[in-house]
Amino acid sequence: PSSESSSQVKPAAANEKQPGSENIIVTSQDGITKIMFNRPTKKNAITTSMYKEIIHALKAASTDNSAITVITGNGDYYSSGNDLTNFTDVRPTSIEETAKNGSILLRDFVDAFIDFPKPLVAVVNGPAVGIVVTLLGLFDVVYASDKVNFNTPLSPLDRSSKQKLNKETIEPAAEMLILGRKLTAGEACARGLVTEVFPESTFQKEVWTRLKAYAKLPTNSLRISKELIRSNEKEKLHAVNAEECTVLQGRWLSEECMNALMNFVSRKSKL
Amino acid sequence: PSSESSSQVKPAAANEKQPGSENIIVTSQDGITKIMFNRPTKKNAITTSMYKEIIHALKAASTDNSAITVITGNGDYYSSGNDLTNFTDVRPTSIEETAKNGSILLRDFVDAFIDFPKPLVAVVNGPAVGIVVTLLGLFDVVYASDKVNFNTPLSPLDRSSKQKLNKETIEPAAEMLILGRKLTAGEACARGLVTEVFPESTFQKEVWTRLKAYAKLPTNSLRISKELIRSNEKEKLHAVNAEECTVLQGRWLSEECMNALMNFVSRKSKL
Amino acid sequence: PSSESSSQVKPAAANEKQPGSENIIVTSQDGITKIMFNRPTKKNAITTSMYKEIIHALKAASTDNSAITVITGNGDYYSSGNDLTNFTDVRPTSIEETAKNGSILLRDFVDAFIDFPKPLVAVVNGPAVGIVVTLLGLFDVVYASDKVNFNTPLSPLDRSSKQKLNKETIEPAAEMLILGRKLTAGEACARGLVTEVFPESTFQKEVWTRLKAYAKLPTNSLRISKELIRSNEKEKLHAVNAEECTVLQGRWLSEECMNALMNFVSRKSKL
Repeated sequence: PSSESSSQVKPAAANEKQPGSENIIVTSQDGITKIMFNRPTKKNAITTSMYKEIIHALKAASTDNSAITVITGNGDYYSSGNDLTNFTDVRPTSIEETAKNGSILLRDFVDAFIDFPKPLVAVVNGPAVGIVVTLLGLFDVVYASDKVNFNTPLSPLDRSSKQKLNKETIEPAAEMLILGRKLTAGEACARGLVTEVFPESTFQKEVWTRLKAYAKLPTNSLRISKELIRSNEKEKLHAVNAEECTVLQGRWLSEECMNALMNFVSRKSKL
Repeated sequence: PSSESSSQVKPAAANEKQPGSENIIVTSQDGITKIMFNRPTKKNAITTSMYKEIIHALKAASTDNSAITVITGNGDYYSSGNDLTNFTDVRPTSIEETAKNGSILLRDFVDAFIDFPKPLVAVVNGPAVGIVVTLLGLFDVVYASDKVNFNTPLSPLDRSSKQKLNKETIEPAAEMLILGRKLTAGEACARGLVTEVFPESTFQKEVWTRLKAYAKLPTNSLRISKELIRSNEKEKLHAVNAEECTVLQGRWLSEECMNALMNFVSRKSKL
Repeated sequence: PSSESSSQVKPAAANEKQPGSENIIVTSQDGITKIMFNRPTKKNAITTSMYKEIIHALKAASTDNSAITVITGNGDYYSSGNDLTNFTDVRPTSIEETAKNGSILLRDFVDAFIDFPKPLVAVVNGPAVGIVVTLLGLFDVVYASDKVNFNTPLSPLDRSSKQKLNKETIEPAAEMLILGRKLTAGEACARGLVTEVFPESTFQKEVWTRLKAYAKLPTNSLRISKELIRSNEKEKLHAVNAEECTVLQGRWLSEECMNALMNFVSRKSKL
């Protein structure tokens, strides 16, 4: 049903940018729709409005005429994950409302990845932190530069969506997920988080050459291939997502989280 | 129940060949029953009658006195997968019947692998394509020569059984399964499709030395070991298999598939 | 509930040893509780009383003030697995009772690992055999020396708990689990059983440096991280454990197992 609701969205023409914030840039060319984090001065941290734009871009891409969809980052970072100001730009009286809205937004955001019907590729051009790491299990292909590292911090403000990883990658990645160990691209590949690692010097060239070849494959066949592979796990992933977002909503209202927030705000106000 | 129904099958004696078509050769020696694709001039493509012979051979092997069972190919190929003439050697009036029979046969074929009670080893001597790749998840051990590659084409005629792979190997192999990327033996090993890769020059010698050692282990212990490991997943695998065969039966009757078939027949008739 | 029942246990002070048998030594220092197999002259084989002590030590560690818990072995071995005298030190009239008690003990033992609420690390200092190998899937991190190998023998007396491995590691490890192949540390790492392999010469130094750094992380954050990752799979693991212990109880009373026991006793009495 999600794709129908975006049927009024005009398919993106070649090189045409979507309207709205430039923190997310969506382009479509040569059969590839590219969704790019574009907040390089903030390490591509994801704000509340960027979550909404990505959901919108994924829904539009699922019905446009592209064969595959790519997510990548502009600048040095892939993305540093959730922007902590999402928690702090809140009137003190509405904390419970904010936690509830945050939980709903996170659920919709992850659902958009679970439901995405075309091959979805992450081109990890720089460090990846937090939710963008734990989301990698919902991509079909993950290419990473060999200079990249992956991290899921232990901060109570940055906890999210860890079970979204397909279960098979939880076990080998447990040292990162539970103990916050930073993984190199090679380590992430050995643990199943990354499909293939390329040398930084030729990363963009090699990756886009391969992606352009994939984009020439028949769109409908790609869609059916993905459906045959993924349809079986969708229902379970949606259930896990719903449950986890409820748990996180409670966590965000915990004393531990409130204290961490106050420390963060206090440090910010002293700058 | 499937093994009981074959209890009247005579256990294969040493080096005795099964009666019937020589496209599948079954031999039993030194505790090893070997089922070999033997259609080297057709890249060991699997015809409808070969599917039936393999089902029969697996049922016989499950009650013969061998300790382990090996599947391999004769000549340059392991197997190029489903023989497309299975679709085209059909009277135009009976397409729906053919799709239904094909679906039942595929289901029985995969069920025979799910239920096989002894250690099952694939000796991948050459390229593997389509269903013989997606079946690898149902083997206990997969040895491959380093010259081999693995491929699951996007052709609508060659789509089958992709979810039969144990789920844990879907994620890392998604680039092959969804985008049709050919994997080297090393890449297939890193993604969990292959247990171990051997140099081509010593492949046959090393592999059969190891298999002969396994074949001396107590048959009953091997059977119980496999049961302890695999019994938990059987029920789920049968359910996935049944569901997928139903989906495929529908796909085979789709316009996309019919057009691909007509193109195939038309190209063939022009040769 | 298991952690509540141990609330009367005094948290272990630095370097304080738990009372009772010295076959298991428990120490707590620098935020790390270390549970060490200490039966080096018997290759750290696990007796019935050691199983009970480990259950007790895990329950105590789950409420002490340590951040992480480590299991390791003293001497050349990590552990050679179940001590076969657990089966033979039995009055002939009470074999069924022994099988029943053994099944209950094994179930409680594995449940203690499934429920353990803090990061659990295996420091595999030497060869690992049988149940200590199949338990590795319930650890969050497994470090191994490169001189170590892993083995799950086919002996009917040594069969246990093979499905306790998280499912994702069954497939790549099937050659070991079903055919009893000994794996090197590197092979075990490639198959997802081991997180990281270190050179023997620097193993202890490198591993404990890293563990001491982890032990400085906030205890509560580690606990919540583990809960977010693992809570989803607990229920299923308990169900698999219960079912398997029932199956094993039956196996231990089988003719095959009785014969193996008599051979073992007979060999022992001739020494």
